Order: sequence, then structure tokens, then C-alpha cells
Amino acid sequence: MDSNTVIAAVSIFTAGITIAIGSIGPALGEGRALAQALSAIAQQPDEASTITRTLFVGLAMVESTAIYCFVISMILIFANPFWNHFMQAATR
Amino acid sequence: MDSNTVIAAVSIFTAGITIAIGSIGPALGEGRALAQALSAIAQQPDEASTITRTLFVGLAMVESTAIYCFVISMILIFANPFWNHFMQAATR
Amino acid sequence: MDSNTVIAAVSIFTAGITIAIGSIGPALGEGRALAQALSAIAQQPDEASTITRTLFVGLAMVESTAIYCFVISMILIFANPFWNHFMQAATR
Amino acid sequence: MDSNTVIAAVSIFTAGITIAIGSIGPALGEGRALAQALSAIAQQPDEASTITRTLFVGLAMVESTAIYCFVISMILIFANPFWNHFMQAATR
Amino acid sequence: MDSNTVIAAVSIFTAGITIAIGSIGPALGEGRALAQALSAIAQQPDEASTITRTLFVGLAMVESTAIYCFVISMILIFANPFWNHFMQAATR
Amino acid sequence: MDSNTVIAAVSIFTAGITIAIGSIGPALGEGRALAQALSAIAQQPDEASTITRTLFVGLAMVESTAIYCFVISMILIFANPFWNHFMQAATR
Amino acid sequence: MDSNTVIAAVSIFTAGITIAIGSIGPALGEGRALAQALSAIAQQPDEASTITRTLFVGLAMVESTAIYCFVISMILIFANPFWNHFMQAATR
Amino acid sequence: MDSNTVIAAVSIFTAGITIAIGSIGPALGEGRALAQALSAIAQQPDEASTITRTLFVGLAMVESTAIYCFVISMILIFANPFWNHFMQAATR
Amino acid sequence: MDSNTVIAAVSIFTAGITIAIGSIGPALGEGRALAQALSAIAQQPDEASTITRTLFVGLAMVESTAIYCFVISMILIFANPFWNHFMQAATR
Amino acid sequence: MDSNTVIAAVSIFTAGITIAIGSIGPALGEGRALAQALSAIAQQPDEASTITRTLFVGLAMVESTAIYCFVISMILIFANPFWNHFMQAATR
Amino acid sequence: MDSNTVIAAVSIFTAGITIAIGSIGPALGEGRALAQALSAIAQQPDEASTITRTLFVGLAMVESTAIYCFVISMILIFANPFWNHFMQAATR
Amino acid sequence: MDSNTVIAAVSIFTAGITIAIGSIGPALGEGRALAQALSAIAQQPDEASTITRTLFVGLAMVESTAIYCFVISMILIFANPFWNHFMQAATR
Amino acid sequence: MDSNTVIAAVSIFTAGITIAIGSIGPALGEGRALAQALSAIAQQPDEASTITRTLFVGLAMVESTAIYCFVISMILIFANPFWNHFMQAATR
Amino acid sequence: MDSNTVIAAVSIFTAGITIAIGSIGPALGEGRALAQALSAIAQQPDEASTITRTLFVGLAMVESTAIYCFVISMILIFANPFWNHFMQAATR
Repeated sequence: MDSNTVIAAVSIFTAGITIAIGSIGPALGEGRALAQALSAIAQQPDEASTITRTLFVGLAMVESTAIYCFVISMILIFANPFWNHFMQAATR
Repeated sequence: MDSNTVIAAVSIFTAGITIAIGSIGPALGEGRALAQALSAIAQQPDEASTITRTLFVGLAMVESTAIYCFVISMILIFANPFWNHFMQAATR
Repeated sequence: MDSNTVIAAVSIFTAGITIAIGSIGPALGEGRALAQALSAIAQQPDEASTITRTLFVGLAMVESTAIYCFVISMILIFANPFWNHFMQAATR
Repeated sequence: MDSNTVIAAVSIFTAGITIAIGSIGPALGEGRALAQALSAIAQQPDEASTITRTLFVGLAMVESTAIYCFVISMILIFANPFWNHFMQAATR
Repeated sequence: MDSNTVIAAVSIFTAGITIAIGSIGPALGEGRALAQALSAIAQQPDEASTITRTLFVGLAMVESTAIYCFVISMILIFANPFWNHFMQAATR
Repeated sequence: MDSNTVIAAVSIFTAGITIAIGSIGPALGEGRALAQALSAIAQQPDEASTITRTLFVGLAMVESTAIYCFVISMILIFANPFWNHFMQAATR
Repeated sequence: MDSNTVIAAVSIFTAGITIAIGSIGPALGEGRALAQALSAIAQQPDEASTITRTLFVGLAMVESTAIYCFVISMILIFANPFWNHFMQAATR
Repeated sequence: MDSNTVIAAVSIFTAGITIAIGSIGPALGEGRALAQALSAIAQQPDEASTITRTLFVGLAMVESTAIYCFVISMILIFANPFWNHFMQAATR
Repeated sequence: MDSNTVIAAVSIFTAGITIAIGSIGPALGEGRALAQALSAIAQQPDEASTITRTLFVGLAMVESTAIYCFVISMILIFANPFWNHFMQAATR
Repeated sequence: MDSNTVIAAVSIFTAGITIAIGSIGPALGEGRALAQALSAIAQQPDEASTITRTLFVGLAMVESTAIYCFVISMILIFANPFWNHFMQAATR
Repeated sequence: MDSNTVIAAVSIFTAGITIAIGSIGPALGEGRALAQALSAIAQQPDEASTITRTLFVGLAMVESTAIYCFVISMILIFANPFWNHFMQAATR
Repeated sequence: MDSNTVIAAVSIFTAGITIAIGSIGPALGEGRALAQALSAIAQQPDEASTITRTLFVGLAMVESTAIYCFVISMILIFANPFWNHFMQAATR
Repeated sequence: MDSNTVIAAVSIFTAGITIAIGSIGPALGEGRALAQALSAIAQQPDEASTITRTLFVGLAMVESTAIYCFVISMILIFANPFWNHFMQAATR
Repeated sequence: MDSNTVIAAVSIFTAGITIAIGSIGPALGEGRALAQALSAIAQQPDEASTITRTLFVGLAMVESTAIYCFVISMILIFANPFWNHFMQAATR
């Protein structure tokens, strides 16, 4: 296998596995927070607006770790500097 | 094995495993939130509409991590830039 | 092994393992939500219709992650673009 | 090993492992829902018919993920398009 | 190793591992449901007949996933289409 | 290694591992149900006969998954169709 | 390595690992049931005889899965049909 | 490596790993039962003799699965029929 | 494979796996803290501002471990000193 | 590697791993029983002597599984029949 | 592969995996402590300042283990003594 | 690699891994017992001396399994009979 | 690969993995203790000084196991006796 | 690779992994005991001195298992008898 093939194969595999593993933690964490939010609303309906606001700000923070993974995954597919290097080397 | 075969095999395997692993977290997290929502409705029926609304907005957020995986998976099968590169290289 | 064999073998294996792993999360999540729904009905029978409606909309959302896996799995078996490529290459 | 042997071996192994892994989640999820249903009936006998109906509709939904696996498994054994391709190629 | 040996070895191994892994989930799920049923009977003896009936219908549904595995396992040993193919090829 | 050795080695290993893994689930499930049964008898001694009857019918159902494994294991040792095939081939 | 060595090595390893893995489930299940039995006796001393009787019948059922493993393990060491076959082949 | 070395190495490794893995389940199960027994005595001191008697009969039953492993382990070291076969073959 | 290819492949794979594994802990930890915060607000609405403030300062601290991983991941892709070394060596 | 080296290396590795894995179960089980014993004494100080006596008899039983592992481990190091065989063969 | 490539590849991989694995524990531990802090504030608002102070001193201590990993990770990338050695050897 | 190197390498690795794995169980078990002891003292301060005495005797018993591992580990490093054999063989 | 490369690569990898794995336990343990400390302060504010003092002395003890790992990790990077040996051998 | 390199590499890797794995158990166990101690002080402040004394004696005992690992780790790095043997053999 030549260099291009190796880099492409590794990039594809890493991009997939990164977002796959990286979605487990955020999904579970968000699910837990969401469940507790619903329980809290049922317990204290008068505070529903405070709870909902805190929930969505917090969810955005948890989601950020999933987005880090998604960003890395997208960089590896569409803006991979190593791939670009080998492409330039090939066309030079 | 030539380059095309390697890239195709890796793409197929990664596409499958990405959505497979990536569906575990969201499914468990959504199941947990849904379970708690039903419990909250039973506990505070008067707040059913608030709970249901918060639930579905939250579920959409959890679902987003599954959709990241699905998007990567679809990109790898139908819009794989590495595969396109090797196809162009072959037809050139 | 020639390219066709490799692509076919990888597609078969990935199709199977994708739906196999991808069914664990949704099944557990749906089971949990369903269990809680039954408990909620027993606790608040008057809200049975609201609970059941929320349950089935939620289950459909959880099921969606299983369906993503099933779709990828079916694509890999019956509409695999990489396999089609090699078939066309062979008949050309 | 020639192509036919590889495809057959991979198909057999994948068919088995798909239904094996794919039965863990549904079985556990159904067991959990069933357990809660019985507890709910004991708690609220008057709602036994509603609980039982919701239970069986829900179980059918959980079972669906097991059936996806079973369908893929059966397709791989009895209607495997890749195997058919190699069979036709051999007889041609 | 010739084709027959490979197919036979893979079939034997897959048949065993399929039913082995496939029995974990149903056994645990059924055990859980059964445990809850007994607890429900102790709690509400007057509903023993409803509980028992629901239990056995539910257990049959859980058992079905174990039976899927057993069916695949038996097919692989006694009605393996791939093995039959190679047998016919050998006798032809 | 010739075919006979491979088939025999795979059969031996699979027979053992099948019943070994296959005994984990049923044993845990039965232990759980049995524990709950004893607790239920202590809680409601008057229903001891109903509980015990339900327990043993249920245990038989759980045990069935262990027996599937035992059956496959015994078939692989004493009535292995693949082994018989190679034996006949050798004596022919 | 000749056939005899392979068969013997596989038989030894499988015999050991079968009973080793196969003892985990029954031991945990029996320990759980036994623990609950003692708790039930402390809770309802008047039913000690019923509880003890149900306990030992149930333990025997759980133990049966361990015994399946022990039987397979013993067969592989002392009455291994594959080993006997190769012994007869060697003396013939 | 000649046959004797292989058989000896496999026997040594299997003997050790059998009792090592086989001691996990019984030790945990016995520890659990013992813990519950002490709790039961503290709760119902008047039944201490019944509890203790049931405890030790039950522990003996749990211990039996550890002893199965120990027996297999000892057979593999000191009365290994496969080893004896190769020894006789060597001296013949 | 030459040095450049190895370094690039390892960098790509490590960058992905670092952020993937590194997002599990923070996401779960933040989800847990967020869930508890919502529960605390429901329990003591008057302290909502103190709780929310403490929550977001704490979340930032937990997020820091995810950011360490993201920083390392970005360094490996865009400012990798080892890659730079080999690039300079190549152009020299 | 000659036979002696293989046997010695396998014996050393197995001896260590046997007692290492074999100490996990007993240590956890004993710790649990001990913890419950202290709780039971605090709950029922008058029964301290009965509880302590039962505790130490029970601990001895749990410890027995660790001792099985220690015995096998020691046999493999200091009284290994396979090693003795090869030593005798070498000196003969 | 020459020495430089090996050292660089190992350093890159180790740097990533060190901080990735090393962030799991601190993130979970901090999340747990933070969750409990919020619960404590809700329970005892008058002690909010003491709780918050203790929380942040404690979080700093937990964070220290993550920082150890980050330090090692940074040393391996930017101040790796082994890499420096090989660089000096190369330029000498 | 000659025999001495193999034996030394295996001894070093086994000595380390034995005490490493072997310290997990005792440390967790002792921690649990110690935690419960402190809870028991807080609950029943008058029995502090009985509880402490039972605790330390029990801890010594749990510690014994760690010491078995330490003994084996030390024997493998400083009094390894297999190593001594090869040393004597070399000097002879 | 020559000796220097092997020793350097192993040292780098071990240094990273040692602190990575070694930070999991202390971080979780400290997080748990810290969480309980905050809960204890909320429950008994008058004892805040005693609790805090005990907490920090205890945390230092838990931290010590992380520091052992850090020390070993630093020794392997900056004061590795094996590396020094090979350096001296090379310069001699 | 010559003997010295192998022994050094194995010693380095084992020293690191020994203390890494060996710190998990003690850290978790100590964290648990410490957490319970703080809870006990809050519950029974008058017994703070007894609890603290018992805690630190117990922690020392748990710490001992971590110290066993540290000792073995240090011996492997600084007083490794196998390494000394090969050094003496080399200088002789």
C-alpha cells in the first residue's frame, strides 16, 4: 500500500470511530440531566422556567464535548492537513 | 489488495461500526429521559404539557449526537472525499 | 483474495454487526421507558391516555436510532455503492 | 481459500453472531418491562387490561429490534446477494 | 485446509457461540420477570391468576429471542445451505 | 493439520465454551427468581403453594435456555453431522 | 504438531475453561438465593421449613447448570469420542 | 516443540487458570450469603441456630462448584490421561 | 511505509481517539452535576442563583479535562513538532 | 526454545496469574462479610459472640477458595510433576 | 522504520492516550463532588460559603491527577529527553 | 533469545502483574470493611472496642490474600527455583 | 531496531500509561470522599472544621497512590537506570 | 534484540504497569473508607477522635497493598536481580 492509501484509510476509520465513541458520553449525560429536569419540573412546577433555562445552558455545555469530537471528525475528512500534504507532494 | 479495495473496505466497515456504536448512547439516554417523563406526568398530570414540551426539545438534543454519527456514516458511504480522489485518479 | 471477495466479505460482516450492536441500546432504552410507563399507569390510571401517547411518540424516537442502523445495514447489503463500483468495473 | 469459501464462511459466522448479540438487548428490555407490568398489575389490579394492552404493544416494539437482527441473519443465510453473485459468476 | 473443512469448522463454532451468547439475555430477562411475578403474587394474592397468565405470555415473548438463536444454530448444523452447496459441488 | 483434526479440535472447543457461557445467564436468572420466591414466601406464607408452583414452572422455562446450550453441546460431541461426513469420506 | 497433540491440548484447555467459566454463574446465583433464604428465615421463622425446602430444591436446579459443565468437562477428559477415534486410528 | 512439551505446557496453564477463574464466583457468592447470615442473626437472634445450619449446608453447596474446578485442576496435574498416553507412547 | 506516512497515520489516529475517549468522562460528569443542580433548584428555589453560579464554575472545571484532550488533539493535527521535524528534514 | 524453557516459563506465569486472579474473589467476598458483621454487631451488640464465631467460620470457608489457588500455585513452582519429568528425562 | 520514526510515533500515541485515559477519572470524580455540593447547598443554604470553599479546594486536588497526565503528555511532545537524545545523535 | 533471558523476562513480568492484580481485591475489600466499621462505631459508640477488634482480625484475614500474592511475587524474584536450575546448569 | 530505540520507546509508552491508568483510582476515590465531605458539612455544619481537616489528611493519603505513579513515571523519563546503562555503554 | 535489551524493556514496562494497576484498588478503597468516616463524624461528632484513629490505622492497612506494588516496582527498577545477573555476566 502506498502512503496515500494508508493516510486515507486511517483518516476514514478514525473519523468514524471518533464520533461513534464520542457520542456515548454526551448522550448518556444529557439523557440523565434531561430526566432529572423533568422530575424537577413535576416536583416544583412554579420553577419550570428557571429549571428549563438552566437545563438548556447545561445541555449546551455537555453537547460541547460531542461537538469537539464532531469537529475533529470533520477536520479529518474534509480538511486533513496530512492528506493535503501528500496531495501536494503528489501534484508537485 | 489495491488502493481502491482498501479504501472501500475501510469505508464500509467504518460506516457500519460508527452508527452501531453511536446508537448505544443516544438510545439509552433517550430511554432514560422518556421513562422519567412518564413518571413525572403520572406524578404531576397538570404539568403534562410543560413536561412533554421539555421532553421533546431535550430528546432532539440527545438525538443530535446520533445524527452526527449518521451523517458521518452517510458521508463515508455516499460522499467519501478519499474515495472520490481515488476514483478521479483512476479515470484520469 | 481479489477485490470483489474482500468487499463482499466486509459488507456482509459489517451489515450483521451493525444491526446486532445497534439493537442493544434501543432495546434496553425502550424496555426501560415501557417499564416506567406501566408503573406510571398503575400510579395514575386517569392519565393513561396521556402517558400512552407520550410513550409511543417517545418510543418512535428511540426506535429511530435502531432504524438508522437497519438502514445502513440494508444499504450495505442491497445498495452498496462500493460493490456497485466494482461490479461495473468488472463488466466494463 | 477461494472466493466462495470466504463468502460462505463470513456469511455463516455473521449470521450467527448477529442474532446472538442482537438478542441480548431485546431480551433484557422485555424482561424488565414484563417485570414492571406484573408489579403494576399487583399494585393496581383494576387497570390490568390497560397495563396488559400497553405492555404487549410495547413488547412488540422492543421485539422489532430483535426481528431486524433475525431478518438480516436470515437474509445472510438464504438470500445473500453477494453469495448469489458469486454463484452466478461460477455457473456462467 | 480445503473449503469443506473451513465451512464445517466455521459452522460448528458459530452454531455453538450463537446459542451460548444468545441464552444470556433471555435467561436474565426471564429470571427478572419471574422474580417480580412472585413478588407480585405475594403482594396481591387475589390477582395471582392474572399475574401468572401475563407472566407466561410475556415469558414466551422473551423466550422467542432465545428461540431465534436456537433456530439459526440448528440451521447452521443440520440445514446449512452453504454446506449443502459445497457437498453438491463435491459430488457433481 | 488435516481436516479431521481441525473439525475435531473445533468441535471440542465449541462444545465446552457453549455450555460454559450458556450456563451463566440461566444460573444468575434462576438464582434471582429463587431468591425472590423465598422472600415472597416469607412475606405471604399463605400463598406458599401458588408461589412455589409458579416458581418451578418459571424455572423450567429459564432452564430451557441452558438446555438448548447443552443440546447443541452434546450434538457437537456425539452427533456432529460434519464429523460424520468426514468420517464417511475417510472410510469410503 | 501431529493430530494427537492438537486434540489432547484442545481437550485439556477446553475441559478446564468450561468448568471455570461455568462455575461463575451458578456460584453467584446460589449465593444470592442462599442469602435471601437466610433473610427470609429471620423475617418469618415460623416458615423456616418451607423456605429451607424450597431453597434446596431450587439450589439443585441452579446447580444443574454447573453440573452440565462438569459433565462436558469430564467427557472431554475421560470419554472424548474424538480422542478415541484418533487412538483407534493410530492402533489400527 | 514436541508433543510432550505442548501437552505439559497446556496442562500447567489450564490447571492454574481453571482454579483461578473458578474461585471468583464461589468466593463472591459465599461472601454474600455469609454477610446476609450475620445480618439475619442480628435481626433475629433466637433463630441463630437455624440460620447457621442453613448457612453451612448452603455454603457447602456453593463451595461444590469451586471443588469441581479444583478436582479438574488436580486431575490435569496429577492424573492427566492425555499426558499418561504420551508417556506410555514414549516408553513403549 | 516511509517515516512521513507512519507519523501522519499515528497522528491522525491518536488525535481522533484522544478526543473520543477524553469526552466520555467530562460528559458523564457534567451530566451528573447538571442533573443534581436541577434537582437542587426544585428543592430550594430561593437558592437558584447560588446553585447556578456554583454549577457553572464547577462545570468549567470539569470541562477543563475535556479541553486538555482537545488541545492535545489539535496540537497533534496542526502543530505537531515531530511532523514538523520530518517536514524540515525532507525539505532540507 | 527447548522444552525446559517452555515448561519453566509457563509454570512461572501460571503460578503468578493463578494467585493474582484467585485473590480477587475471596478478598471481595471476605470484605463484604466482614463489613456486614461489624454492622450486625453495632445493631445487636448482645449477639457479638455468635456473630463473630459465625463470621470466622464463614471467612475460613471463603478463604478456602483462595487457598486452593495458593496450593496450585505452590505446586506449580515447587512440586511441578511435568517439570520433574523433564528434569528426570534430562538427567537420564 | 528508523529510530527517529519509532520514537516519534510512540511519543505521539502515548501523549494522546495518556491525557485521554487520564481525563476519565478526574472528570467523573469532579462531577460527583460538584453534584453533591449543589445538593448540600440546597439542603443547607446557610453553609453555602463553607461548602463552596471546600468544594473548590477539593476539586483542585482531584484536578491535580489530571494535571499530572497533562504534564507528562506535554513533556512527551515538547520536552521529550529520548527524542532530544536521538536528535543530538543525528546532528552530531 | 536464550533460555535465561526468557525465564528472567517471564519472571519479572509475572512478579509485577501478580502483585498488581492481587492488590485490587484486598484493597477494595478492606476499604469496604473499614467504611462499615466507622459507620458502626458512629451508630453504636459503646461497642467501639468490640468492633475495632473484630475489624482488625478480619482485615488481617483479607490482607492474607494480598500477602499470598506478595509471597509468590517475591519468590519469583528472589528464590525462583526455575531460574536457579538454569543458573546451576550454566555454571555446571 | 537497536537497543536504544527499544528502551526509549518502551520507557515513553510506560511513563504515559502508568500515570494515565494510575490517575483513575485516586481521582474517583477523592471525588467520592469530597462529595461525602460536602454532604457531611451540610448535615452537621458545627463540625465543619473537623470534617475538613480529616478530609484533607485523608485526601493526601489517597493522593499518595497517584504520586507513586507520578514518581515512577518521572523516573522512567528523567532518571531511567536502564537507559543510563545503555548510554554509558554507547559512550564507552 | 539481545538479552540485556529484553530484560530492560520488560523491567521498565512491568515497573510502570505494576504501580498503575496496583493504585486503582487502594485509591478506591481508601476513598470509600474516608467518605464513610466523614459521614460518621457528621452523624456522631462526639466520637470523632475514635473514628479518626480507626480510620488512619485502617487506611495504613489498605495503603499497604499499594506499597507492596511500589516496592516490587522499585525493586524491578533499582535492584533487579535478573538485570544484575546479566550485568555481571557481561562484565565478567
